[in-house]
Amino acid sequence: MTDVVDTTPHPETTALPLVDGEPVELDLDVAALGERLLGRWADDRRASRELMARDEFHRIPGLGMEEHRARVLDQLHRMVEEKAVHRAFPKRFGGQESPGGNLAAFEEVALADPSLQIKSGVQWGLFAAAIMQLGTESHHEKYLPPAMSLELPGAFAMTETGHGSDVASIGTTATYDPETDEFVIHTPFRAAWKDYLGNAALHGRAAVVFAQLITQGVNHGVHAFFVPIRDENGAFLPGVGGEDDGLKGGLNGIDNGRLHFDHVRVPRTDLLDRYGSVEKGGAYSSPIDSPGRRFFTMIGTLVQGRVSLDGAATVMSKAGLAIAIRYASERRQFSDGAGDGETVLLDYQRHQRRLLPALATTYAMSFAHEKLLEQYDGVFSGAHDTDADRQELETLAAALKPFSTWAGLDILQECREACGGAGYLAANRIVQLRPDLDIYATFEGDNNVLLQLVGKRLLSDYARRFKNPDAGAIAGLVAQQVGEVALNRSGLRALGQKVADFGSTARSVGFVRGTDAQRQLLTDRVETMVAELAGRFRDVAKLAPEAAAELFNANQNELIQAAYAHAELLEWEAFTERVEAETHEGTKRVLTWLRDLFGFTLIEKHLAWYLIHGRLSGPRAQAITDYIDDRLLPRLRPYAVDLIDAFGFRPEHLRADIASGAEKARQEESRAYYVAQKAADEAPVMEKSGSKTSRKAATSEAAQPSAKG
Amino acid sequence: MTDVVDTTPHPETTALPLVDGEPVELDLDVAALGERLLGRWADDRRASRELMARDEFHRIPGLGMEEHRARVLDQLHRMVEEKAVHRAFPKRFGGQESPGGNLAAFEEVALADPSLQIKSGVQWGLFAAAIMQLGTESHHEKYLPPAMSLELPGAFAMTETGHGSDVASIGTTATYDPETDEFVIHTPFRAAWKDYLGNAALHGRAAVVFAQLITQGVNHGVHAFFVPIRDENGAFLPGVGGEDDGLKGGLNGIDNGRLHFDHVRVPRTDLLDRYGSVEKGGAYSSPIDSPGRRFFTMIGTLVQGRVSLDGAATVMSKAGLAIAIRYASERRQFSDGAGDGETVLLDYQRHQRRLLPALATTYAMSFAHEKLLEQYDGVFSGAHDTDADRQELETLAAALKPFSTWAGLDILQECREACGGAGYLAANRIVQLRPDLDIYATFEGDNNVLLQLVGKRLLSDYARRFKNPDAGAIAGLVAQQVGEVALNRSGLRALGQKVADFGSTARSVGFVRGTDAQRQLLTDRVETMVAELAGRFRDVAKLAPEAAAELFNANQNELIQAAYAHAELLEWEAFTERVEAETHEGTKRVLTWLRDLFGFTLIEKHLAWYLIHGRLSGPRAQAITDYIDDRLLPRLRPYAVDLIDAFGFRPEHLRADIASGAEKARQEESRAYYVAQKAADEAPVMEKSGSKTSRKAATSEAAQPSAKG
Repeated sequence: MTDVVDTTPHPETTALPLVDGEPVELDLDVAALGERLLGRWADDRRASRELMARDEFHRIPGLGMEEHRARVLDQLHRMVEEKAVHRAFPKRFGGQESPGGNLAAFEEVALADPSLQIKSGVQWGLFAAAIMQLGTESHHEKYLPPAMSLELPGAFAMTETGHGSDVASIGTTATYDPETDEFVIHTPFRAAWKDYLGNAALHGRAAVVFAQLITQGVNHGVHAFFVPIRDENGAFLPGVGGEDDGLKGGLNGIDNGRLHFDHVRVPRTDLLDRYGSVEKGGAYSSPIDSPGRRFFTMIGTLVQGRVSLDGAATVMSKAGLAIAIRYASERRQFSDGAGDGETVLLDYQRHQRRLLPALATTYAMSFAHEKLLEQYDGVFSGAHDTDADRQELETLAAALKPFSTWAGLDILQECREACGGAGYLAANRIVQLRPDLDIYATFEGDNNVLLQLVGKRLLSDYARRFKNPDAGAIAGLVAQQVGEVALNRSGLRALGQKVADFGSTARSVGFVRGTDAQRQLLTDRVETMVAELAGRFRDVAKLAPEAAAELFNANQNELIQAAYAHAELLEWEAFTERVEAETHEGTKRVLTWLRDLFGFTLIEKHLAWYLIHGRLSGPRAQAITDYIDDRLLPRLRPYAVDLIDAFGFRPEHLRADIASGAEKARQEESRAYYVAQKAADEAPVMEKSGSKTSRKAATSEAAQPSAKG
Repeated sequence: MTDVVDTTPHPETTALPLVDGEPVELDLDVAALGERLLGRWADDRRASRELMARDEFHRIPGLGMEEHRARVLDQLHRMVEEKAVHRAFPKRFGGQESPGGNLAAFEEVALADPSLQIKSGVQWGLFAAAIMQLGTESHHEKYLPPAMSLELPGAFAMTETGHGSDVASIGTTATYDPETDEFVIHTPFRAAWKDYLGNAALHGRAAVVFAQLITQGVNHGVHAFFVPIRDENGAFLPGVGGEDDGLKGGLNGIDNGRLHFDHVRVPRTDLLDRYGSVEKGGAYSSPIDSPGRRFFTMIGTLVQGRVSLDGAATVMSKAGLAIAIRYASERRQFSDGAGDGETVLLDYQRHQRRLLPALATTYAMSFAHEKLLEQYDGVFSGAHDTDADRQELETLAAALKPFSTWAGLDILQECREACGGAGYLAANRIVQLRPDLDIYATFEGDNNVLLQLVGKRLLSDYARRFKNPDAGAIAGLVAQQVGEVALNRSGLRALGQKVADFGSTARSVGFVRGTDAQRQLLTDRVETMVAELAGRFRDVAKLAPEAAAELFNANQNELIQAAYAHAELLEWEAFTERVEAETHEGTKRVLTWLRDLFGFTLIEKHLAWYLIHGRLSGPRAQAITDYIDDRLLPRLRPYAVDLIDAFGFRPEHLRADIASGAEKARQEESRAYYVAQKAADEAPVMEKSGSKTSRKAATSEAAQPSAKG
């Protein structure tokens, strides 16, 4: 059977792909694929993994919070000694000025302990990075060396109990006092306590404190200040107070805590003044006139947190899948159909449905993250650092971080359940990872808030695309868009009819299988959703503020869904680019199936949308599910282990008993026992089985699913 | 505007419902609703909650594993003293012979600590219950009193490292030795070690061990034996060995571990012989001839574990929602449209979308669990204990337990994220609950395995419904079914057309809104899925075993989806029954909306299926989403807090700082600060704001979503 559009062969009777009509075992170049997954900063990743393979950096399961915190602090010092944390800093301070390489290495630290990752992120990615990005020469000279060496552990004091994602509304004030040429840092009420700050509960000696800068009676908005908080004995300095946030759902190797300030004075020069400075006497000036743009520029310099969370979520998903797929490829449960053995878990359709789309998603995340890292490196190395580059970077990070952190949580949950009771043991690692990853969904920007940013950006791009974004223009353009959509729809529908006539799944799905069709479907959904929203918002300028806010709120859920659809498209595009660049034939074939699985599961998830909007006919929609179940899963099954091997983890990285081969050894031992018993004619007869036979064979007839205790 | 089918009024311009065209605040009878949620065994639940309100039973966050285990063991002794755990046992031993009341009380124990719940479940719900259900008079006399009093802590040794859900294939043997009139309990290989057993690592002195019973050279299948494992000093008895399972993802107050046996001898009389006994000399007999039926009967006596997990998952979901919705009703973030304050989280559409369907689901779970508990009580009290009753109970438990445990995990995750960083603190409780609940999805029957059982039951019911379930008959009936379906489809389609002509959301959704229409849609989906599967399986008898297994596997995912659809229908029906029985007008109205929200979100989730199968037209499908967003969420919003108040938890049950009113106090304090500052004319001018104004009002213009640090 040939295909309408795509020429990929269809194996009809075997899980193996057909080449020239013959089933073949494709050869996958695992080593080369592994290299591609490591990406441009492969050497930095490898060096970091090498370090993180050492026992000294590993999390010890069950360690109490106090001991865990102390251990992670020690590990931070060891990372300084190993020169593992200075890649991003200026060469004159001993750094490498490699922002991309720095994050790549940093992300892999999650393999040892996500607490270690995030605590080093607090010290060098937030505290020291804020000094570097928001401070100027004198701050760099004075504070970067001790921050880099960990002589000066610091907190990043932005979030308050009362304001998280809405940074602009924080309550802490920094009021300039011309009498003494100082800023007075003050917490006016309980909700303005700084909160959830790593290094605040115990180890921080200083903090970069974000506060409303007030001078000469004017509030110039949020600025950052260098503020010492503890003396050398670890006691709070006068006017500074705080609390321990205590035990958390995970990341308990980090001493998160609260800080508050009672008229604490710092020298005027300890304002980190790259984007706004105050002269002696109190005159304020800034290189950026607009307070709004200034605020977002300052915040934007700290985007690396989001970028690195996207990467770390990807690393953690890879680790979970490497464990669960390895186990599923060895573990046997319930009799197979022939009655002479038990079936390997990964041969069950449901198990494939649970783990293989997760694997495809993780590949997409890995390739998409690589693009994000390139963009980040371009901006922060200065190679590509226009306003547009920065905006693009921020939007990309705001789209990918929600996708990967949510996907990672789902993937690790599925991995845990797929390993059953064994998956729940700390010795098998997965339950050590997921609770840590949990908070990634809401810190460094709550996922829902980030997606709203992306959605607003999509809307404004949509308006800008047509130069004059006034209400009438948008309305006209929406009409145009609808016209275009109608065209697409009838095109697809005509094909759908033809397909229904043939009544073949392979043909029904043929059109959709092509790369262009997947791209069209995913792109069309984003564009149509944005266009629909733009249409609803077109008269928003005419509304009173309250009514406008109400209109916006009534469409909030859809706006977030549109932004998420955009993130899905970005992930798919990154995967596709990588597949198209692949030169090894076998690898390319298998990656194409994996990309198809990713694309198809995205389309399947939103099938109702495609049906309602006339993009897919009923038979074609059904064919997508059938194609996943009948073609893609069986095709990919034989390569599942290769695909996790390509992640390149060593046992020291996974540290999971069930991923060690122990399960296979146990299965073989028990099988050998029954074989030997049968050979020696010592096997008991099964009750009413009629003939003397081995227990296994006979039991298998009765082996139906039932409870475990 | 009137409605086509349903006469519930439509408020078009306000969140308040219209009655006779006027918006009214409905009055919800919270106390009476609370009583209904507590159900038939309200007194037992209240007594248990009273006990669990005490500090001595509360989990201490961050307690090390050893200390947690010791604490929970002490708590178990305290529960004996409080006479809290013997409701299910015979009156002659001091019990109450109230199986339903026992489970109701037991489920509430999760409010204090799920470890306490599950450890008491191991002792009294598995170990002692197995003695009661599988043993006979002499076992009861000898072993029940010390098991009930906890003088004899015991393990339930069913699961092995090599076999979890497939109990029939366990490897442990119990071979009768006529020489000594003893059974020899033996572990033939590593995979046959008993594993994941509560009480096995430390506290158990005995175990009910499941093993293949072999006598006179015949294996009679899995039976249970009473086996002492430790002496009074806690040392293993000769021939018994074991290991600690160590730290787990949760439930670390329980000492799960492994056991193995090296030719351990127990008296013949310690076979728990209700369903199979061995005479002196070795002759085997059983009241149940078929080994398969005997096995399932024995396993079936232990269904209470599943029943109680369904209830406990419901209790834990209620607790999570009580915390997250309370917080969402007080917490404010980002400026409201009018620019004079911040918006309460629960007023955001997205926040409503996250929490209100979860609330509706939890209500469904609560009412469905009550029905399950009634069924369970009927069977185990002997009031309704036919084979059909037992089968019905097992199928119901196998359907509801996967639904509620998975829903519970999703709900607690959503609650955690909805509370942001505060949700991640142990002090706010949610992250203490979810990791414990995690394992509920795979123990006492893996959810996927249970759903397959349900699916098989649905298929065999489908065949049985037509008396002679041979291939031809099924085939003919599938054709009939398809005919019926086609009728339904055209009926709906015609209505869909009419609706499209009017172009009104309210009208489009009108038909679907009615209870009968929701029932029809949900029922139809289950029946059609089962019929489709039955059609594919109709020739299965003609196939070779291998091909039959392959065919089954190729449809495994759909079978599980059909079973899950059945579970959804059961949940919806239970909710609907409760709504229909409601007599208080206001309560009934609000519960109807909540039930609609539950039904609509189910239908929305499967919208693609309804569209592909022609059950809903595109416009009608779109109208369902619009109806949720535009009508149901705004209608239910004002009652969200009442609906969680009806759960009846006290602060001692929730133990979450953010559910204490502290957030509201903080918001009011900060608001008062800005008001006073403005009143005193001390507020700084905002940069470039042009006029002297308060910081809050001016900032709100620039307040766009951005990162938290």
